[in-house]
Amino acid sequence: MKTRAAVAFEAGKPLSLEMVDLEGPREGEVLVEIKATGICHTDKYTLSGADPEGLFPAILGHEGAGVVVDVGPGVKSLKKGDHVIPLYTPECRECEYCTSQKTNLCQKIRGTQGRGLMPDGSSRFSLGGKPILHYMGCSTFSNYTVLPEIALAKVREDAPFDKICYIGCGVTTGIGAVIFTAKVEAGANCVVFGLGGIGLNVIQGLKMVGANMIVGVDMNPEREAIARRFGMTHFVNPKDVQGDLVSHLVELTRGGADYSFECIGSVQVMRQALECCHKGWGVSTIIGVAPAGAEISTRPFQLVTGRRWIGSAFGGARGRTDVPKIVDWYMDKRINIDDLITHVLPFEKINEGFDLMTRGESIRSVVVYG
Amino acid sequence: MKTRAAVAFEAGKPLSLEMVDLEGPREGEVLVEIKATGICHTDKYTLSGADPEGLFPAILGHEGAGVVVDVGPGVKSLKKGDHVIPLYTPECRECEYCTSQKTNLCQKIRGTQGRGLMPDGSSRFSLGGKPILHYMGCSTFSNYTVLPEIALAKVREDAPFDKICYIGCGVTTGIGAVIFTAKVEAGANCVVFGLGGIGLNVIQGLKMVGANMIVGVDMNPEREAIARRFGMTHFVNPKDVQGDLVSHLVELTRGGADYSFECIGSVQVMRQALECCHKGWGVSTIIGVAPAGAEISTRPFQLVTGRRWIGSAFGGARGRTDVPKIVDWYMDKRINIDDLITHVLPFEKINEGFDLMTRGESIRSVVVYG
Repeated sequence: MKTRAAVAFEAGKPLSLEMVDLEGPREGEVLVEIKATGICHTDKYTLSGADPEGLFPAILGHEGAGVVVDVGPGVKSLKKGDHVIPLYTPECRECEYCTSQKTNLCQKIRGTQGRGLMPDGSSRFSLGGKPILHYMGCSTFSNYTVLPEIALAKVREDAPFDKICYIGCGVTTGIGAVIFTAKVEAGANCVVFGLGGIGLNVIQGLKMVGANMIVGVDMNPEREAIARRFGMTHFVNPKDVQGDLVSHLVELTRGGADYSFECIGSVQVMRQALECCHKGWGVSTIIGVAPAGAEISTRPFQLVTGRRWIGSAFGGARGRTDVPKIVDWYMDKRINIDDLITHVLPFEKINEGFDLMTRGESIRSVVVYG
Repeated sequence: MKTRAAVAFEAGKPLSLEMVDLEGPREGEVLVEIKATGICHTDKYTLSGADPEGLFPAILGHEGAGVVVDVGPGVKSLKKGDHVIPLYTPECRECEYCTSQKTNLCQKIRGTQGRGLMPDGSSRFSLGGKPILHYMGCSTFSNYTVLPEIALAKVREDAPFDKICYIGCGVTTGIGAVIFTAKVEAGANCVVFGLGGIGLNVIQGLKMVGANMIVGVDMNPEREAIARRFGMTHFVNPKDVQGDLVSHLVELTRGGADYSFECIGSVQVMRQALECCHKGWGVSTIIGVAPAGAEISTRPFQLVTGRRWIGSAFGGARGRTDVPKIVDWYMDKRINIDDLITHVLPFEKINEGFDLMTRGESIRSVVVYG
């Protein structure tokens, strides 16, 4: 079949809108009509050429929602008409990782996914007979796309695509880091570094679990208002702090954060996030993606005296199990997605979404296939 | 009263055997006759002058066992004749740290202990009218010493002092890191860096909890035999590894260690210990004490992909609660202390114990007060 898609032919260039060829689903695969897709920093990172693992030509996008159009042989858990969210972190429930019950990082199709291919080692996309690569196993910048069954979360049918697509990455990454990775308990004092899309979702996750102090740290004073609306109780602008930021945060939280979250991708901030944690038990979770080759450092004494340094990918969520729950939380109004989606664009204006992100004007732009 | 004591008058000099003056116990304090004391690397570190927090003149020693001789007003949990192990990490069961149930790092007397003083801000030791400082709240290099009630674990009376003194630091630090800090489960694959006194205790802790692979890493081939006797299943000498040690360990453990332990105090080894951990869930515990100012580093991707970097002090053990249990484990022959005590010296030869350690000839030397 033919489908509209925004193709990344090479790094540093805008996406090119094309009618590409899409093969139907093979064994264990599912054809999905994408109804809406968010534009995430990771798409921009890859498109920029800075991602050392970025491959071209490819169809980017990994934060979508849509409807099952067709299923290949052997697909049991999904049928035509099911509403789904694509999962760049699949959940096979069979591999060593899934069955460990200690991680969400299913490795079943890791190798092929990293090479932009379906699990059988081939691509379903092509243009003029030449293959185009998949991206993060999703390629939601195509109106129709093919995914493995294990990379689709089935969700309720009354949930709006143009909102729940954000659960495919940003919402889950932020809220999940609180709930599934750090397992924050009610009453905890927390510090969140970076009040972009991820940080705001961390904040609403903290509010949801009943955290006590929710301190937000950002250089941009304009983030304060929305962060407070999402549950932030204290705002700290490092530019306004006299002296050492870490000492200031330790004092503010009366001994240090029980939990801190780094949502920026700066190794310097990651260190501050660890060191502002409470002696004896503070847990610092790295969410942000640092530049290639950058390293974190600290004195080991920080760990020996009880701080714990951990990280979170896709919020520690097991996609097929947890993503439908998060959709429920949204539909039950326990979390707020609407106010984070600052821009909705028709597919034809997808490159504008990247420009909005570059200029820092959007929290999240969503593209809808009309 | 007068008591024999080995006094550290200044950094870099041998201990000086003296008859010092010891005041009796004040409110909440206990007078203890030390029967035996281990000599630990930390004593040597302080005596060398390398410890930036080292103070002189002081009576070192923090790994002892003895008998209660007298108690001050208000002491309720101990009485004359009780057998005790001094605790450099006390357990008040009242402070924010103890009641958090998340850490063993009781802070009740942290300030005064760090300054070599009793909780009321004074010293009980003096010589010629000039005060001598306490050390780590213990000063077990004195035949008689005074400690706060909260810094004494009451233990069974049939346990031999010249063995269980080692539980006051090294045994608990190693075994506790496995059981209380990392909480290793049966079947886990583990890597232990450094097969000195701490590493060997980590190994027997791993054996006790039913670990699967117990890989020991040390540059000294002479450590292999005793480590195997304590439960090590695989020995790796970095000098014999072709290529990268981390890759070798990941391959040997079929994907990486579920748990690793650094028992050396080298920031380079701490990095290796983290990076040899299994993606998704590997936990690396820092036990070793790094040189002042040294820093650990890694790529944050190591944590974002699920490895956890933590540390352990006094094995995560709550002294008054856990140390008596470890004494039971020794008496029940569930752990082996006897083979780790390679030298027993009379008090008069305490400086020989330091020499043995310097020359790497001892695992643990114990000094007995005859």
